[in-house]
Amino acid sequence: MTSKDRGILIVLSGPSGVGKGTVCKALRSCTPELIYSVSATTREPREGEVEGVNYFFKSREQFQQLIHDDQVLEWAEYVGNYYGTPRKFVEDTLNAGKDIILEIEVQGALKVKQKFAEGVFIFLLPPSMDELENRIVGRGTESEESIRSRMSVAMDEIRLMEHYDYAIVNDRVENACSRIKSIIEAEHCRKDRVVSKIKQWMAEVN
Amino acid sequence: MTSKDRGILIVLSGPSGVGKGTVCKALRSCTPELIYSVSATTREPREGEVEGVNYFFKSREQFQQLIHDDQVLEWAEYVGNYYGTPRKFVEDTLNAGKDIILEIEVQGALKVKQKFAEGVFIFLLPPSMDELENRIVGRGTESEESIRSRMSVAMDEIRLMEHYDYAIVNDRVENACSRIKSIIEAEHCRKDRVVSKIKQWMAEVN
Repeated sequence: MTSKDRGILIVLSGPSGVGKGTVCKALRSCTPELIYSVSATTREPREGEVEGVNYFFKSREQFQQLIHDDQVLEWAEYVGNYYGTPRKFVEDTLNAGKDIILEIEVQGALKVKQKFAEGVFIFLLPPSMDELENRIVGRGTESEESIRSRMSVAMDEIRLMEHYDYAIVNDRVENACSRIKSIIEAEHCRKDRVVSKIKQWMAEVN
Repeated sequence: MTSKDRGILIVLSGPSGVGKGTVCKALRSCTPELIYSVSATTREPREGEVEGVNYFFKSREQFQQLIHDDQVLEWAEYVGNYYGTPRKFVEDTLNAGKDIILEIEVQGALKVKQKFAEGVFIFLLPPSMDELENRIVGRGTESEESIRSRMSVAMDEIRLMEHYDYAIVNDRVENACSRIKSIIEAEHCRKDRVVSKIKQWMAEVN
């Protein structure tokens, strides 16, 4: 039943330091059928980077046109370059019946939600606030003041959890992956996603 | 995190002939931690039946008192005996942090929903309407008229799917079990179930 249905956009987010990247990397190896959203950027390709795999490389004019045409689900500017999530790649993947995952920081995820409310928004939590502090301290490069400031940002980010559909604890990477896989399977079974198909059956029988 | 949380009531329902009993039996072997709701009845215990395992055996007066005290989530009378789902066993299991599953026909499930809207309601579907007819015919004991009548009842029951949270296809028993397990894991990750715990953390840190 799943193969012919539209795919689901999964947005994985959470505070800085929680391990989004590590979980996403582990997901790649255990769920090869899941597609990863490819960002667009105006920065120059680095050696070995492949168009459509690492990024969609765009000129500033092209990127601004995409923004103007509502073709980026979220975007930001860093150090003079645009980065964003192109809508077309997401839509094409979903229309092909495949699920797509987007790993993104908390503010970016909320922007995506404004344009794509039918996505499934998953918030990754640390096992405890102490553990989040350990992970931030563990990077070893931060002053005490910087750590306090990063913890305060993380707390603000965690407060934004209420805008998400699910919140999962990243106690162990395997557990977090298992929870994400279960969420994806369960979301495919949500009545609202199945009901139109069933109405079709019923009409054929009557 | 799950162990200290309140458990979830899972209600598994679906049209007659869809294989609810078979799926539930398979679930028992693959998810031993899941508790099964035990019904109350006024009929006499049969040989080997154990109080609190097969049924809670009650007198008519006791059962009527339970109904009066709103202590049954649903009940019905068959051949002069009451059958129903006692609220206390469900509540005690949930308060102990364990999930409990109730297998029940479609009308009974909707009654449970009226009293226990926080349950997770799963509708089991046949792989197709043809397959449902095969299963009903396959019992081999029914006249053509009886088959038509049973199919018509099944269609009416499938229309009630809209009141459920999830709809899963019973194409293979193992697949149906996997979907139910995923739904249970995903439901434990729903933001609303996690948020109170997180607010507690935040308060401790501040």
